[in-house]
Amino acid sequence: MRILLINANNSQVVTDKVVAGARGAISPGTELIAVTGTFGPRVIGTRSENAMAAHSTMHLAAKHAPGCDAAVIAVSYDTGLGGAREMLGIPVVGMTEAALLTACMLGGRIGIITFGHRVQPMYRELVESYGLISRVAGWRSIESSAPYQPGAHDELDREIVATALSLIEKDGAETVVLTGAVMASVSSRLQPQVPVPLLDGISAGVRQAELLARARYPKPATGSYAPPGPRELIGADPALVEAFKTPPR
Amino acid sequence: MRILLINANNSQVVTDKVVAGARGAISPGTELIAVTGTFGPRVIGTRSENAMAAHSTMHLAAKHAPGCDAAVIAVSYDTGLGGAREMLGIPVVGMTEAALLTACMLGGRIGIITFGHRVQPMYRELVESYGLISRVAGWRSIESSAPYQPGAHDELDREIVATALSLIEKDGAETVVLTGAVMASVSSRLQPQVPVPLLDGISAGVRQAELLARARYPKPATGSYAPPGPRELIGADPALVEAFKTPPR
Amino acid sequence: MRILLINANNSQVVTDKVVAGARGAISPGTELIAVTGTFGPRVIGTRSENAMAAHSTMHLAAKHAPGCDAAVIAVSYDTGLGGAREMLGIPVVGMTEAALLTACMLGGRIGIITFGHRVQPMYRELVESYGLISRVAGWRSIESSAPYQPGAHDELDREIVATALSLIEKDGAETVVLTGAVMASVSSRLQPQVPVPLLDGISAGVRQAELLARARYPKPATGSYAPPGPRELIGADPALVEAFKTPPR
Amino acid sequence: MRILLINANNSQVVTDKVVAGARGAISPGTELIAVTGTFGPRVIGTRSENAMAAHSTMHLAAKHAPGCDAAVIAVSYDTGLGGAREMLGIPVVGMTEAALLTACMLGGRIGIITFGHRVQPMYRELVESYGLISRVAGWRSIESSAPYQPGAHDELDREIVATALSLIEKDGAETVVLTGAVMASVSSRLQPQVPVPLLDGISAGVRQAELLARARYPKPATGSYAPPGPRELIGADPALVEAFKTPPR
Amino acid sequence: MRILLINANNSQVVTDKVVAGARGAISPGTELIAVTGTFGPRVIGTRSENAMAAHSTMHLAAKHAPGCDAAVIAVSYDTGLGGAREMLGIPVVGMTEAALLTACMLGGRIGIITFGHRVQPMYRELVESYGLISRVAGWRSIESSAPYQPGAHDELDREIVATALSLIEKDGAETVVLTGAVMASVSSRLQPQVPVPLLDGISAGVRQAELLARARYPKPATGSYAPPGPRELIGADPALVEAFKTPPR
Amino acid sequence: MRILLINANNSQVVTDKVVAGARGAISPGTELIAVTGTFGPRVIGTRSENAMAAHSTMHLAAKHAPGCDAAVIAVSYDTGLGGAREMLGIPVVGMTEAALLTACMLGGRIGIITFGHRVQPMYRELVESYGLISRVAGWRSIESSAPYQPGAHDELDREIVATALSLIEKDGAETVVLTGAVMASVSSRLQPQVPVPLLDGISAGVRQAELLARARYPKPATGSYAPPGPRELIGADPALVEAFKTPPR
Repeated sequence: MRILLINANNSQVVTDKVVAGARGAISPGTELIAVTGTFGPRVIGTRSENAMAAHSTMHLAAKHAPGCDAAVIAVSYDTGLGGAREMLGIPVVGMTEAALLTACMLGGRIGIITFGHRVQPMYRELVESYGLISRVAGWRSIESSAPYQPGAHDELDREIVATALSLIEKDGAETVVLTGAVMASVSSRLQPQVPVPLLDGISAGVRQAELLARARYPKPATGSYAPPGPRELIGADPALVEAFKTPPR
Repeated sequence: MRILLINANNSQVVTDKVVAGARGAISPGTELIAVTGTFGPRVIGTRSENAMAAHSTMHLAAKHAPGCDAAVIAVSYDTGLGGAREMLGIPVVGMTEAALLTACMLGGRIGIITFGHRVQPMYRELVESYGLISRVAGWRSIESSAPYQPGAHDELDREIVATALSLIEKDGAETVVLTGAVMASVSSRLQPQVPVPLLDGISAGVRQAELLARARYPKPATGSYAPPGPRELIGADPALVEAFKTPPR
Repeated sequence: MRILLINANNSQVVTDKVVAGARGAISPGTELIAVTGTFGPRVIGTRSENAMAAHSTMHLAAKHAPGCDAAVIAVSYDTGLGGAREMLGIPVVGMTEAALLTACMLGGRIGIITFGHRVQPMYRELVESYGLISRVAGWRSIESSAPYQPGAHDELDREIVATALSLIEKDGAETVVLTGAVMASVSSRLQPQVPVPLLDGISAGVRQAELLARARYPKPATGSYAPPGPRELIGADPALVEAFKTPPR
Repeated sequence: MRILLINANNSQVVTDKVVAGARGAISPGTELIAVTGTFGPRVIGTRSENAMAAHSTMHLAAKHAPGCDAAVIAVSYDTGLGGAREMLGIPVVGMTEAALLTACMLGGRIGIITFGHRVQPMYRELVESYGLISRVAGWRSIESSAPYQPGAHDELDREIVATALSLIEKDGAETVVLTGAVMASVSSRLQPQVPVPLLDGISAGVRQAELLARARYPKPATGSYAPPGPRELIGADPALVEAFKTPPR
Repeated sequence: MRILLINANNSQVVTDKVVAGARGAISPGTELIAVTGTFGPRVIGTRSENAMAAHSTMHLAAKHAPGCDAAVIAVSYDTGLGGAREMLGIPVVGMTEAALLTACMLGGRIGIITFGHRVQPMYRELVESYGLISRVAGWRSIESSAPYQPGAHDELDREIVATALSLIEKDGAETVVLTGAVMASVSSRLQPQVPVPLLDGISAGVRQAELLARARYPKPATGSYAPPGPRELIGADPALVEAFKTPPR
Repeated sequence: MRILLINANNSQVVTDKVVAGARGAISPGTELIAVTGTFGPRVIGTRSENAMAAHSTMHLAAKHAPGCDAAVIAVSYDTGLGGAREMLGIPVVGMTEAALLTACMLGGRIGIITFGHRVQPMYRELVESYGLISRVAGWRSIESSAPYQPGAHDELDREIVATALSLIEKDGAETVVLTGAVMASVSSRLQPQVPVPLLDGISAGVRQAELLARARYPKPATGSYAPPGPRELIGADPALVEAFKTPPR
């Protein structure tokens, strides 16, 4: 099975961290195809960058999906998820969507840790868009740019653990979701220090992508997720033009 | 991997249908351990039977979970889910919970088909308890006892397909969930006639159970899903008494 | 009038406290029939025990309801409420349900005090199941096993009052509900120290049970609360088997 | 016990119907004090009349509450409920509030019948203000002025029954609430033709008022329902001026 | 254009502050007609006073609307808004409603500052009645009677700024709404010290009133906001009697 | 005042219709700057096209906002609204957001008409993202491509009116919102045939944009709508690069 990891960030470092995290979660025999944005924001961290990156997600999806069995939006705002899910003939899951829905099956309400106070409203709106806001026990944000830098992050690790414990003790969180594509490997490293499941979106995302690929639910033939084409695009990348010429089989 | 299918209905026919449906969804190498209730309602179809069957779920779970890697509540009211999830050291998913959360990842709002108008409020309350009511496009019920009888069900099949189409066209459903443990194989048989994904809880349940077993999220050590014991039980089955003596490791 | 108090806890101490509390709330001429669980958890304090106790509620209800005019679930998780309400021909109210709905009529949002942080999610889910979560101003939990022990509880009393005051001042609670069947007499004892109404479920429950018994609303003849029978039960107590043979008149 | 029925409609006919309905619901020994508006709308049937009538409710409440043990807002928009509850030292319940909360204890979702399509949004907003909208199964309105006229209403009776049945069968209502103060006796007359409980607000209101009077919950000493005074009123009726001079003891 | 400012408080001081605030927000050529209550509460600060003042709003609206192009409820509980909107043939906006809806268009969730802890539930219920509770980031109340007194309010100003900053930093508010009709000029004075938009209801109200007057949406001819008349009023002010005789053209 | 109309559709016909509609709504002295997409979908009609068009909105906004006083997203999915609002130093409103919020101030619940059944879920999610779903009375979709073609549309006009009437009579809509940028002039033409206000997003959008421009609320200096820059963009249009170099003053 081939799973496409779509990272609309223009940052190979992020993609590398995503792949490292995803490797720990895939089944034997699953192959990862990780692609990085080629235009738009270096790292998505604002509403306007996220809006631009949705286009990038479409572009990467159209270009690299052929031959893949499922795709994961490897940006924790699940950038362009609805569009890619509609456009492609394969299952597409958002990394944060997958973490939240997987957490639901572990029971209880979820604590969410974001990196940067500024982006918290974007995550909140994302959770609301999934209809899952009543499943959230509480929110915390950590101000740190360490995740995007190489090397050990002992201090950040301690802060993440302390933040998770605070969500558990004060807000009654029964699971904790760590947002951010660069956090892909962190949850498994820190899990031993956290007394409830600590989830990250990349691990949950590739697992749910594998599940959906195996399940072979059909592509909708009607509704807002049916193939969009044929539709006319202007000045778009050939891969996108192609994707909108012929609907997926 | 060994997955426990807990059918608190006192009906081997139902268990057989569950197993037949689950077989089409499991991965190679997965073994199914299907157990049937030994006391309580023959077939759960009312609130009071469901209340009794929750005890039966606990009993079957305590007795048969040892040696298994995950469990599925194979009753579509997800009877006793919270209790079993807390008591056992392995992941436990509800079949309807799994169908709904999987449907969420396919996109859009969900149409739900129940069997019997009378039980629809019970399903509605179940969906509300998951915080997912805003994801429901519409409800339909079919009055038929055919699912519990042997033989071909051409007429019922036609009614299910027509009902699914009505949910899609009138209520804007973008996926359809077919409730009922006996429906385990029906969704795959009728899928070709339905233009959006048609999900059943047993297939979704065993898939998500496999996923959670592989993911190895830890058993919570705190909160309302931490091991309940040691707690004193009166006049309970030895397996239950044992489960409450020592908490899962 | 005869009111059945169904305590599925296997603990006569709890039942005694319930009766003591209920006595202060009943009208002249009302008789209390208090029954205690005979199997299952000694004291319900976890999700799994609650699941088992639902069966016990059904059993006690079927056995002792004949001759009674209304019943109260005297466990503050309202264990088995839906099932008993469906099965019996008499009105059945949950003690926590009654406290919440009575508090609604006093105006404003409700502060809820639970005993034990662990069980708070179970109460939260209960309140959500009644559709009343928007009426809750805030939650507090008190860690203490004193309520289950004999003797004076001066320190606990002080903590309850301080907790209620905190809900009023910080969370804007305009009434306070004290959960826990053993709290039945505490609310009236501590009321003078709390500047808003302090409700307990047993008092509210027997009052609402009396009201419903006098009101003589008919047993539903259709829907999910209509009599469940005739339905086949396996290995059940004769009282239960009987209750499912003939529907209530 | 003396219960004050506050009818801010300027219509003795309505008050007479309210009293006739209330008589069938009170306990032996309860006395009804029914008062009728002296200014404002003849019959409240619009938003603007309802706004005016809130003043009338305050006026009637201030003037007639002394000596009473509880009060019922006998207008089905529960006109002025929050204000009267705050101002008076005795419990005050709204007739529609009481019907809805009582219906909650009978189980399941509620069907609501209003008289006049135009006023349905006012009722909807009232139910939303109680936080109970998720408990509503469906809405129906009946266009008829018959309730306000003397004589038999066979045709209206048939329409009410048919409407209730439609709510039960199509919308899954498990109880039906009949709004309108003039409907006070109708629910008991038509109950035999409706297979689920049929509630009216006057009966439910006087029952809950009796319950609250007996329960003797204290008047809040803080919060938005504490006594409002002393506050200065201009050009108000002496009874109102008096009520705002000294707070209730 | 003539905009009617309806202040049902019996306080010319409040009206003067309202007018001063409104002047800074109107377009050239807009004329303000500010009217003050002539009966009822001196200053509305409780539920019961608010109920009385609704009548006063109707009275002022009926008397002074002729010749005006739009009206603003210049009481921050939006007292009598629904009634006035229905009764008059011109657009009517509530000052708090206008502030909230305008804030929505600036993006993100809103922090709300009320004056007096006691009245906060009244504001909360108002926001809920507009269906906007999910747009609220947090609440704060300030205890001070300074706004109703003449002279400089340096200390209060500092407290308002500190409170706004707390809403922004702790609750993630992206706009702040300052309730209270007397706050009309404060928001513009303090805006330079607050890093997100600081809105008051009077400014927002007159702006939205101008907008609606220019837009010339028709008066509804059906539904709950259609003209109420002809309807019979008893003992009402001639202006009100007149307003209910003939529906607005 | 100069208002920028951002039409990310690559269709001058649509822009022309937008401008024609906007002209009827602006104040004297307001100038319209209408810009059309230069890449991406010809006409946005699917989720994937909407995702691509968000980039186009950013591009048009960055390039054409300088010198303007406010902007309107002239695509009825409010495509890229959050991003443009964050990026620009001037107020930005979404056309559908503006229609909904303006409708709120007219009172009651809103009926929404969409063009094409397929896109209705996209509108529903948009309304949910504004937290306004409880304000929606009902939904209807009309299947017609006529709006995008020149000439008279008598049949479509009749269908729109009939659809609006159905929303009013069956769903209790008290206002009706007509989605679609090409509908800009239709609402005023058909208003005489509809008994409640009929709103379109372009008219409401330019009015609210004017209001916000005049109100001069400051650009947030903190939070998720503060200026995003300086941030690094790859391969982006020079106007965008410039916009992310220096934050708006």
